[in-house]
Amino acid sequence: MRYKAVLSYDGTRYHGFQIQKNALGIQGVVERAFRLMTQSVIRIHAAGRTDKGVHAKGQVFHFDSDLDLTLENWMRVNDRLPLDIRVLSIKKTKPDFHSRHDSKSKKYRYVIAKNPSSAFDANYEVYVRGLDINPIKEALPYFIGTHNFRGFCQLVKGKSTIKTIYAIDLKETKKHYILTFHGNSFLKYMVRSMVGTLIEIGLGRMEPMMIKTILETQDRQLAGKTAESRGLYLQKIYY
Amino acid sequence: MRYKAVLSYDGTRYHGFQIQKNALGIQGVVERAFRLMTQSVIRIHAAGRTDKGVHAKGQVFHFDSDLDLTLENWMRVNDRLPLDIRVLSIKKTKPDFHSRHDSKSKKYRYVIAKNPSSAFDANYEVYVRGLDINPIKEALPYFIGTHNFRGFCQLVKGKSTIKTIYAIDLKETKKHYILTFHGNSFLKYMVRSMVGTLIEIGLGRMEPMMIKTILETQDRQLAGKTAESRGLYLQKIYY
Repeated sequence: MRYKAVLSYDGTRYHGFQIQKNALGIQGVVERAFRLMTQSVIRIHAAGRTDKGVHAKGQVFHFDSDLDLTLENWMRVNDRLPLDIRVLSIKKTKPDFHSRHDSKSKKYRYVIAKNPSSAFDANYEVYVRGLDINPIKEALPYFIGTHNFRGFCQLVKGKSTIKTIYAIDLKETKKHYILTFHGNSFLKYMVRSMVGTLIEIGLGRMEPMMIKTILETQDRQLAGKTAESRGLYLQKIYY
Repeated sequence: MRYKAVLSYDGTRYHGFQIQKNALGIQGVVERAFRLMTQSVIRIHAAGRTDKGVHAKGQVFHFDSDLDLTLENWMRVNDRLPLDIRVLSIKKTKPDFHSRHDSKSKKYRYVIAKNPSSAFDANYEVYVRGLDINPIKEALPYFIGTHNFRGFCQLVKGKSTIKTIYAIDLKETKKHYILTFHGNSFLKYMVRSMVGTLIEIGLGRMEPMMIKTILETQDRQLAGKTAESRGLYLQKIYY
């Protein structure tokens, strides 16, 4: 039987999603919890890898198991997981469902703090002194649509860098500016590279128009540096 | 010159306040930051030790230095500290000020969640399934006043176990029950032992009256087990 699960994690303590040789990866921790619970080897396949320090509110993975447990019993895997990793749901799915191949679009969120972070908020937001949100607002529309994001990612051989951004929503709360990126799929470091460039624009070091230039020239040298992982959340995956 | 500083930290990643041999203690991290900043050895003296995983919103420490830095420059120690440890203030104080000896009273807070914790809240609260707050409310008044808290602490040789609790405030928010303990001083594990016993009462496994019995008999065997450190905050120290 194939199962689809939704996973949330605080990425602070982990070296990213993928299994690591000498570091704690989320995938390894989850697979270990399933192994302890079921006394069998369960391999999980996630929709997307997240980097060290990146959080997830709605990561999705699938796995196969012959065990005939109730969904309630499957959820008891949480008893074997550290408290900063929580399985939110597990349900049976069709035998050919694939968390990555079948995903239609994804939402990532980036949280910018308006004031210096407290000891308790620091791993969940990023504060940048002197940031002006208005030029950022001006820059956002340049990203919308289908572009070659070669200038806004770390290149991975054999992967197309042409992606579509459907929308970028900017929400302002009392304490935060929250950017939500909705796109068909995302490249390695893509959101953080986009945000890093938006931060340069918000600091007045770059014109909003530069987004257009970088998309056209595909020159990563022109982009801002990759923004910190701790402000980034894999928010939702749509199927 | 003697300085008084207020410190906040997320205790999750640390093995308590005190300098540890093979583990990361908050004191060592702060002293290292001062050393990197001033190129001199600065020893800090805190008002109270906190255990592994316990948080602080208002820890206080004092230190001596001959360096004549502006207070603004002293605050730049934050640039050398990890983001989950923040110095909130540093000011000059009288030469014989002592963070621990001069403290008049302290407030500790314990945060109980009404619902199972998310991956992001788990290290900052404690959820207990099936807890009823009403018997806890009934039990709180028994703690008020001067008592021998031998039944509610880990014994430390040569230290009196007679302490005064001035007030325990119970505040209910949408997501939490927040207990604030105000007392002249606190013993090792005292708040967590009190909360552990209140949890037993909230689960109906013990009568509220038992608080009185434990205070009178000073029998730790009767008390509940020490509550988890992650719900505890050193909130404020009064001078």
